[in-house]
Amino acid sequence: MIVVMQEGCPRENVDHVCHLIREMSLIDHVIVGTERTVVAVIGDDRLKDRSVLESCPGVDRVVPILAPYKVASRVAKPEPTVIPLGGRLGASVGGRRVCVMAGPCSVEDRSMLLEIAHAVKDAGATGLRGGAFKPRTSPYQFQGLGEKGLKYLAEAREQTGLAVVTEVMSIDQVDLVCEYADVLQIGTRNMHNFNLLTAVGKTGKPVLLKRGWIATLEEFLLAAEYIMDAGNQRVILCERGIRTHEQYVRNTLTLAIIPAVKRESHLPIVIDPSQGTGHAYMVPAMCRASVAAGADGLLIEVHHDPEHAMTDGGQSVTLQTFARIMKEIKAIATAVEREA
Amino acid sequence: MIVVMQEGCPRENVDHVCHLIREMSLIDHVIVGTERTVVAVIGDDRLKDRSVLESCPGVDRVVPILAPYKVASRVAKPEPTVIPLGGRLGASVGGRRVCVMAGPCSVEDRSMLLEIAHAVKDAGATGLRGGAFKPRTSPYQFQGLGEKGLKYLAEAREQTGLAVVTEVMSIDQVDLVCEYADVLQIGTRNMHNFNLLTAVGKTGKPVLLKRGWIATLEEFLLAAEYIMDAGNQRVILCERGIRTHEQYVRNTLTLAIIPAVKRESHLPIVIDPSQGTGHAYMVPAMCRASVAAGADGLLIEVHHDPEHAMTDGGQSVTLQTFARIMKEIKAIATAVEREA
Amino acid sequence: MIVVMQEGCPRENVDHVCHLIREMSLIDHVIVGTERTVVAVIGDDRLKDRSVLESCPGVDRVVPILAPYKVASRVAKPEPTVIPLGGRLGASVGGRRVCVMAGPCSVEDRSMLLEIAHAVKDAGATGLRGGAFKPRTSPYQFQGLGEKGLKYLAEAREQTGLAVVTEVMSIDQVDLVCEYADVLQIGTRNMHNFNLLTAVGKTGKPVLLKRGWIATLEEFLLAAEYIMDAGNQRVILCERGIRTHEQYVRNTLTLAIIPAVKRESHLPIVIDPSQGTGHAYMVPAMCRASVAAGADGLLIEVHHDPEHAMTDGGQSVTLQTFARIMKEIKAIATAVEREA
Amino acid sequence: MIVVMQEGCPRENVDHVCHLIREMSLIDHVIVGTERTVVAVIGDDRLKDRSVLESCPGVDRVVPILAPYKVASRVAKPEPTVIPLGGRLGASVGGRRVCVMAGPCSVEDRSMLLEIAHAVKDAGATGLRGGAFKPRTSPYQFQGLGEKGLKYLAEAREQTGLAVVTEVMSIDQVDLVCEYADVLQIGTRNMHNFNLLTAVGKTGKPVLLKRGWIATLEEFLLAAEYIMDAGNQRVILCERGIRTHEQYVRNTLTLAIIPAVKRESHLPIVIDPSQGTGHAYMVPAMCRASVAAGADGLLIEVHHDPEHAMTDGGQSVTLQTFARIMKEIKAIATAVEREA
Repeated sequence: MIVVMQEGCPRENVDHVCHLIREMSLIDHVIVGTERTVVAVIGDDRLKDRSVLESCPGVDRVVPILAPYKVASRVAKPEPTVIPLGGRLGASVGGRRVCVMAGPCSVEDRSMLLEIAHAVKDAGATGLRGGAFKPRTSPYQFQGLGEKGLKYLAEAREQTGLAVVTEVMSIDQVDLVCEYADVLQIGTRNMHNFNLLTAVGKTGKPVLLKRGWIATLEEFLLAAEYIMDAGNQRVILCERGIRTHEQYVRNTLTLAIIPAVKRESHLPIVIDPSQGTGHAYMVPAMCRASVAAGADGLLIEVHHDPEHAMTDGGQSVTLQTFARIMKEIKAIATAVEREA
Repeated sequence: MIVVMQEGCPRENVDHVCHLIREMSLIDHVIVGTERTVVAVIGDDRLKDRSVLESCPGVDRVVPILAPYKVASRVAKPEPTVIPLGGRLGASVGGRRVCVMAGPCSVEDRSMLLEIAHAVKDAGATGLRGGAFKPRTSPYQFQGLGEKGLKYLAEAREQTGLAVVTEVMSIDQVDLVCEYADVLQIGTRNMHNFNLLTAVGKTGKPVLLKRGWIATLEEFLLAAEYIMDAGNQRVILCERGIRTHEQYVRNTLTLAIIPAVKRESHLPIVIDPSQGTGHAYMVPAMCRASVAAGADGLLIEVHHDPEHAMTDGGQSVTLQTFARIMKEIKAIATAVEREA
Repeated sequence: MIVVMQEGCPRENVDHVCHLIREMSLIDHVIVGTERTVVAVIGDDRLKDRSVLESCPGVDRVVPILAPYKVASRVAKPEPTVIPLGGRLGASVGGRRVCVMAGPCSVEDRSMLLEIAHAVKDAGATGLRGGAFKPRTSPYQFQGLGEKGLKYLAEAREQTGLAVVTEVMSIDQVDLVCEYADVLQIGTRNMHNFNLLTAVGKTGKPVLLKRGWIATLEEFLLAAEYIMDAGNQRVILCERGIRTHEQYVRNTLTLAIIPAVKRESHLPIVIDPSQGTGHAYMVPAMCRASVAAGADGLLIEVHHDPEHAMTDGGQSVTLQTFARIMKEIKAIATAVEREA
Repeated sequence: MIVVMQEGCPRENVDHVCHLIREMSLIDHVIVGTERTVVAVIGDDRLKDRSVLESCPGVDRVVPILAPYKVASRVAKPEPTVIPLGGRLGASVGGRRVCVMAGPCSVEDRSMLLEIAHAVKDAGATGLRGGAFKPRTSPYQFQGLGEKGLKYLAEAREQTGLAVVTEVMSIDQVDLVCEYADVLQIGTRNMHNFNLLTAVGKTGKPVLLKRGWIATLEEFLLAAEYIMDAGNQRVILCERGIRTHEQYVRNTLTLAIIPAVKRESHLPIVIDPSQGTGHAYMVPAMCRASVAAGADGLLIEVHHDPEHAMTDGGQSVTLQTFARIMKEIKAIATAVEREA
């Protein structure tokens, strides 16, 4: 880190900062500029609380230099990570093929799930998404089918070969969800639920980690690091939009995170254009854009009858639209020398 | 809700919307305007997914009318709720007296906690804050003393009479924390952790619920509703700033939420100016402003030696500054016909 | 608009609202719901200040129904607008061909401009961007070459046939810029400068209107409406990112605005991925994504020597990178059945 | 500035950066850390475009060290600036007395203005606000009375002694507004209108500069610097809220900017709680909070009949409420050892 002193602060303020740095077993290096003095700190200061230096007299601010994550960084592992998902279709994320995981927001019943699963498989998806446990903003809303939903998902995998991606909301659900799912999804509301991150880090399952809706890129990679630090290297990053002032979308989908992740990390990144916009009519364009920008996969909400969906009907595309999306992204994938 | 149709949409689109509304066991009421038609929906539609109507042909958007929360609303209970906290000092939140809960960010060891506890009590606080379980963005940072920290907090209460406020991070900690704490704190990262909200809702302890750092006011009150719906009416709302583009603060503290909460809800609201700004030098001004705006309490990070704090040193005020803050807010409280 | 009354408000509050609505020469229509009463307002209320109704006793809030813009809306003109730009290459925006406007952030001198102009033309651009008047956050920064810069731009058009796009910052520059430019650019800081919008609306030149960095979509279309209302229908919308909490980009580029604009308006939309991200390394991916999402054009900062650029070096791509971008977006354009 | 190199970048990347720094006539100072190398730049680099270094191979990012503003900074002038406003009541901003400027959003006609002016004066205001030129988001809305409005304002000053604060929207209005006004207001939409800032900087009138609704603190102070650099040192900063995701307010009022400005600058700061919240019912609490936090003044929208106001009726307080606010803030001012 770099400690920036206030203009004109007395020498003893600088000395005091240097003293504190040495107390932390780090090395101080003072640079006297024409207007300001800064103190560079040498050594691994990731475990230190840099905010303590901000409260010292004469300190203007403290600038971190080292990225706080380590094993998630591209420096630690320059080649991209490819993560096989399971299922009979050979689904994997991070390779040449753009992986499409599609399905209903919630598992509502057996027949709807099987109908949708067959349809998305036929259109070219290799993963099946669907929520059995649903985080809901209101306690009065439908909370998911629970284990029954998981069983339907497993049956759909049996029939179609699709890899099953489903959300786990709390530590006590981890074992149960592991029994049925191929990929554990951590929802946006839980990206900062560190105990849960550690728990899924102790399983051997790939984890699809959604960015918190106001998380920074650093925090996103640190959340991945929690999982990796607990022993599980199979983390798939998933962008699902951030909350901003914009009202014509439910969330603001930030595709520039794709090149940013590719620069900072070896982990694959997939995009969720359904949550990422909140409107079915925007989903095809955002699917195309994601693949064009280099996304490793897509997570798409599909429903055979959106007008009667129990959750997120407004952002679910129909089976017909999904088939069209698959055609469009195959063409885009070819244009960027990948396949879908 | 109100369904706003697109300009010039055909009559069958309107009919289709009306049909879906009736399918939901609600009543449709069509209003033909000079440029647009809207369909008002009559009945309690809180449990319906309004987004399904957004995917219908000819629909422009759907506007909710009913507030999604019920028991947290002022309509349900017009008089303000006063919540006794425990401790020997008669601390309570929501009455005439502004309740000050102060203490270190983390419980670091026994002696520091006792020193700080005595000092904040002497200055006039009635609650003691301090984290035993710490949610940390990085897995490499100090994660708190756990149960040992809880024991020190209980000892500090024993010695001072202060009510103990401390964070519970996951369901499996709830019983343990209840043994020692007077008030269970739900941190900003867990405001959307619905399973945890339900779990603390099953205890009899007052809950200090921090607003998620990008939550809307509605979502904040719905999180309170989760707790109340599980049986616990003793919810204290706590504003701790939102994340915005601003860089001179860690969070943007939005004091206008105080009159907004007073208008919408009967629950008390306290302000955390330490998290809410991230800078110790701003804390006194924001304490004064909070009390002037009508806050029912303050949650303040205080440290006897901020330069050596293990967490959040930069936003912790010293014992001396805390004593000054208490004097200042007493004067402000008098000016607004309360006391502190 | 719809006036939503507070739950349980007395009948006279509703009557008072109805009275005020009639005073505005509009028609009131009361709907009594199971929990709340709402008053629908019938008639064109665009010129009314709906906020006055918010201050009435018993009113919870007022929801606008009519879009505030008219001539910019797709209802007013269902077919997309195609805008010829001038120049000898037949540049136009809004048709089948994706229009690429490229060039330096600032015109720094004659030779650099000509070198870049020839290079971008050879790579396939049909428009030349370059600032002669530069809005700068600091009064101490380079403010542009002024008229000399305009002359160089005109010379570059002469030599290459590219249409010239350049910014006009204030009313007193409008005539001068019109003499030299083919397209008048309104910068993001001036999207709300209504006097300037009206002034360019009185010229016959196409206007490239950048979205204000925190403007809503409605405000963006209303700014276009200012120009159109003054007599100039040739408005090109340009998205350049919004300011959010994100730090890995200068601005957050929101490509979902492309389908949103296509749904709401007949005006063409182009994307500026240079300003929209602030980092040259992200520009190729965002160019591809924009075209895939359906953008009508791109505005790209290109510099022959970014390390010595006077402004925005960090977000300018080299001539080599630009040539590669052109190849990539041609492939994407083909995939989406357009050309570039 | 500090150039942070990527981890593991080759030595020639560092050399190249040093070379570019020397080309800028600045001094490079290389610090080799345990994981990363950084290059500190010594000398005044305010006029340099730091982004060029970001495009160099091996560079991770560039961190500015010097504040970009100079004359607005507290270092340049440690004692607070007090700005007399004119009018017969001795209004001034920045001293011990909190200056209250109140009046209608727009000047609608002569009689309403005089009625309001007398009332706010009687309640204790020393400044009269009121718009003669109104920036409106829609071209179809009321745009203000223009010069006639200015004349009414001057007449109100004549009768009451209040100092007149009114907005100037474009360069061609500056002379006219100077004829009638005591204080020139720059609206939030024009904070980045650098030509206008320079124009008001050439007058001798105090300038009330509103923060742009998404401007950073740095940009705000740089806008002040534009005015000061043009020769006018009498700049009053005015916070009016920022745009965020929050929907229960029109803008999010950030009072922590008060201590931040006091730390960074010698210029006075006033708060506009009317624009800053958008709701009349929040204005009293935010007035009290502002004074408690140390604001030098308040800008308050007052209307004798908000239900019939032509603009901003929903955020204007009545004459009765204004009188109550004045009483409340006098009590708060006393509590913080000031007066109002």
